[in-house]
Amino acid sequence: MVPQAIQWQNDTFSLKLIDQTRLPIRLDYLICYTYTDVCTAIKRLAVRGAPAIGLAAAYGVVLAAGQAPDSNPDERNTFIRQAILELSLTRPTAVNLFWALDRMSFVLRENEKKSSTELKESLLTEALYLHEDDRLRCRKIGKNGLTLLNDGDTILTHCNAGALATGGIGTALAPIYLGHEKGMRLTIFADETRPLLQGARLTAWELMQAGIEVTLISDSAAAYTISRKAVDCVIVGADRITRNGDVANKIGTYSLAITAKLHNIPLYVAAPLSTFDLSLDHGREIPIEEHQAETITESFDRRIAPLEVKTFVPAFDVTPNQYISAIITEKGILRPPLSDSIADLLT
Amino acid sequence: MVPQAIQWQNDTFSLKLIDQTRLPIRLDYLICYTYTDVCTAIKRLAVRGAPAIGLAAAYGVVLAAGQAPDSNPDERNTFIRQAILELSLTRPTAVNLFWALDRMSFVLRENEKKSSTELKESLLTEALYLHEDDRLRCRKIGKNGLTLLNDGDTILTHCNAGALATGGIGTALAPIYLGHEKGMRLTIFADETRPLLQGARLTAWELMQAGIEVTLISDSAAAYTISRKAVDCVIVGADRITRNGDVANKIGTYSLAITAKLHNIPLYVAAPLSTFDLSLDHGREIPIEEHQAETITESFDRRIAPLEVKTFVPAFDVTPNQYISAIITEKGILRPPLSDSIADLLT
Repeated sequence: MVPQAIQWQNDTFSLKLIDQTRLPIRLDYLICYTYTDVCTAIKRLAVRGAPAIGLAAAYGVVLAAGQAPDSNPDERNTFIRQAILELSLTRPTAVNLFWALDRMSFVLRENEKKSSTELKESLLTEALYLHEDDRLRCRKIGKNGLTLLNDGDTILTHCNAGALATGGIGTALAPIYLGHEKGMRLTIFADETRPLLQGARLTAWELMQAGIEVTLISDSAAAYTISRKAVDCVIVGADRITRNGDVANKIGTYSLAITAKLHNIPLYVAAPLSTFDLSLDHGREIPIEEHQAETITESFDRRIAPLEVKTFVPAFDVTPNQYISAIITEKGILRPPLSDSIADLLT
Repeated sequence: MVPQAIQWQNDTFSLKLIDQTRLPIRLDYLICYTYTDVCTAIKRLAVRGAPAIGLAAAYGVVLAAGQAPDSNPDERNTFIRQAILELSLTRPTAVNLFWALDRMSFVLRENEKKSSTELKESLLTEALYLHEDDRLRCRKIGKNGLTLLNDGDTILTHCNAGALATGGIGTALAPIYLGHEKGMRLTIFADETRPLLQGARLTAWELMQAGIEVTLISDSAAAYTISRKAVDCVIVGADRITRNGDVANKIGTYSLAITAKLHNIPLYVAAPLSTFDLSLDHGREIPIEEHQAETITESFDRRIAPLEVKTFVPAFDVTPNQYISAIITEKGILRPPLSDSIADLLT
């Protein structure tokens, strides 16, 4: 069965998250009762993946509304705005976070004169709507993406753009889940995705949970795998897409894109429209988050590199639009020239 | 100071090895008094790197001569031949191992009638000669490679083709050590090199020991690093080079080669002539060893991927000759077309 990363629990007014830092060793859940619980969960990557982060943050605003003093609306609204600010500072690169918080801010503004109960209700309704909306978007992305796949295809994916990264069946993995539902035989290779191993820990796990066979490779083996294992296409997710179609995604995507191009196989990016950032013209404007040195100098608290070695640990890279064969969205498939097709669809 | 992986200790008639399985956490030495100590050290990768394995095995034969019964020459020679056989079975692929043992067998044959003291002396002289010869080859590779570098260059390397892999200052790292000796300012990026992390554990460590600043990156960050950090060239070692100039090297080299080509920076391969296998015409004939699944499903005995996930763990890949800007050998620099320059130099 496809796992659910995020579940709202109305009876206890809490947010239930799969603690993704524990996978695949244990399937533990994390229950968030306050918005700071959500901030912590996002920061320590217990919940990750651009759409999932956005949804968790939206529910975080609901929790903040539950915590806020209800003596007077101004104090209450200030408290919630502070929560929104703190939630927005948890991760810098994924634009869905800001998009979801903007939606919640809008609902707050629309209801700021209302009673605390009514405001809370409105915010919860919005968060649930965003969640359901994401679920549907995932299925639409899956349906659109499936038109690019054939029975018997071999697909390489990177990082985790699956159920664990979204409120539904994922983005990059959505066409694979739908293809599997339809009985298509698909062969999946998953990059382990250093430094945080989301491919090994999460993608391999969730595909296996759904009964889909997956072969794990190290990132450094991707080019060799493409050259020797008749890979038909690469599908990845995205953290931010600029106006010209450049894509920020997990570090290593750029390398895969170059490799795919050289081997004449398509690279597909699967992402909801909320991933597009039309305020930026070009990928080089996207801020690239860096991880702490320990991310690559330690492995589960065991040192694997010399003390005090310098490190450069970008969490994302930018793939220029010319390497992208298509962007699969919930509204259809965008083809090159991407700047034109993005403009047509979104403006 | 550049570390020495292998040191002969004449006063105690023993072989001192850096235990590379402990690096970078501890610098432990392993003292081998018997040839079986050397077999064990090679098998458990305490000593690794093709030239270093060959040298350790040569000294192992010397130790066997010290252990051998000296009642009569036949018994003694049989004992040493048995040791050579056991040493040859420690690792299947390293061609230098067989080459070094052939040299020792030859010396044994030439001296099989001599007294035990004289035979031991002759074997030790040969092992010391092989070691010194390797040391000089490394320096020549370094000197030749240095002509390709400029003051201020930024260099990316993969895996460990350094002092720890040889009897001297390495192959791929040799030009860097010589450049540093001459006061050149060189900026080094080292891929961590999954799955066995030789870059993180060994290359970073040995460069830091020599006072050379090195920045560690994950393999998946190499393309982004090349695109953003003004990398001037990539230098790697080689495990086998075929007649047409295709290069088998640590998994991930092919991906780097593609990336380097696309960014118009050279990829240099540094290797002694003993790495060339003229019995093979083309890289696709090179057998590619695969690691066990645990190599990527576990990290220091901790599981990092789901139980029973399928894996594909090639230890090496093959970089086609068109991606290689030059091969740096102890006899000079080979330029494309590589099949011609290899033929000119070696036949």
